[in-house]
Amino acid sequence: MLPIVTGFANSPDYGEGHSRDFRVRWALEEVGQRYDVRLLPMEQLKEAEHRSRHPFGKIPTYEHNGLTLFESGAIVLHIAYHHPCLLPSDVRGREMAIAWMFAALSTVEPPIIEREAAMLMEADKAWFQDRQSMLDGHVRERLTELASFLGRADWLAGDFSAADLLMITVLRRLEASNIDRQPMLLNEYPTLSAYVTRGKRRPAYERAMAAEQADYKRTR
Amino acid sequence: MLPIVTGFANSPDYGEGHSRDFRVRWALEEVGQRYDVRLLPMEQLKEAEHRSRHPFGKIPTYEHNGLTLFESGAIVLHIAYHHPCLLPSDVRGREMAIAWMFAALSTVEPPIIEREAAMLMEADKAWFQDRQSMLDGHVRERLTELASFLGRADWLAGDFSAADLLMITVLRRLEASNIDRQPMLLNEYPTLSAYVTRGKRRPAYERAMAAEQADYKRTR
Repeated sequence: MLPIVTGFANSPDYGEGHSRDFRVRWALEEVGQRYDVRLLPMEQLKEAEHRSRHPFGKIPTYEHNGLTLFESGAIVLHIAYHHPCLLPSDVRGREMAIAWMFAALSTVEPPIIEREAAMLMEADKAWFQDRQSMLDGHVRERLTELASFLGRADWLAGDFSAADLLMITVLRRLEASNIDRQPMLLNEYPTLSAYVTRGKRRPAYERAMAAEQADYKRTR
Repeated sequence: MLPIVTGFANSPDYGEGHSRDFRVRWALEEVGQRYDVRLLPMEQLKEAEHRSRHPFGKIPTYEHNGLTLFESGAIVLHIAYHHPCLLPSDVRGREMAIAWMFAALSTVEPPIIEREAAMLMEADKAWFQDRQSMLDGHVRERLTELASFLGRADWLAGDFSAADLLMITVLRRLEASNIDRQPMLLNEYPTLSAYVTRGKRRPAYERAMAAEQADYKRTR
């Protein structure tokens, strides 16, 4: 049996790969593991059947050999542990890559999501413009620090790893997108733009994106 | 050589254990590993020496046997991997506990931090009251889902694990605290209040808190 990944039947980004199932698809493509998808309409996410897979009624979930996992970070880490090539083979490199996985999700992503959520949900509020510059500032602080750390390196922890996979999906939210039309901060950081582009040129990324878009066309 | 954990020299919560080094202290107490602390004043966090340990100039960091890690989630996972008792011994239980570690940090914590940050940094803004009810709603949604999952269970994934350690430090932010005086949402969820209390009664938690408070008194 192939692993099953749950995603959105009608992704709100029109198949651009911003939903978090894309991280799992990309990881599976990197390790050469075929998979099936279960695409759920939004209204089924909060129903009991899906809650049994995901206590918060979200995507992605991952089912394989009787194991059902949730949280994209945990799923990508699971895949990385069970296949070579998504984590460094030396102990120290592996620990650093895992630290960077948590940094992507706990330190870099939250201010990006907060800014994006404000653009999507508070754009009609009286306070929107005043808050926007503050939120942009929080994101720029993180991007400056990340660009400084990356410097001339291609990847965060040696060769390409699960850390880069997560970080690049986080940073991609700051590119032009179908889901909002706000200034895209990534362009201010050439180091990070080039880093994201390196990730997007990986054949596994391209395969995952093609599969995501094919699924979107099939279900919309 | 003992591991070294970096924390705040003058914790903004007056030693209440809300800063993220507390998670590492608690984990080390659970596994019976002694440790040293390096307490840094705020102004040193962004200097080059500490940046070499933590690219984002934050706490905690963890140094042991030549390895330097950052991100509380990664450090707790590292400790859990290298000692028995913070992760289930069976493969499936271990994977679920790791999923819940990511859920604590990626799904439950962000709306709690966003609400807290608004109370600390936007209380004087014209929009504060209008946003507050929205942010409360986001937190309540997560708490309702978490309480529903936990039900009558004592812990998230079998016995007490690193997942509970992280989740309880996240939920503690919704208790009465020295750092804000807003309505404490945790009280609305008896299941979760009892869960947090169970965690706080663990001897390892009590030892970690006593050490944190002793350090606070020593450095203030």
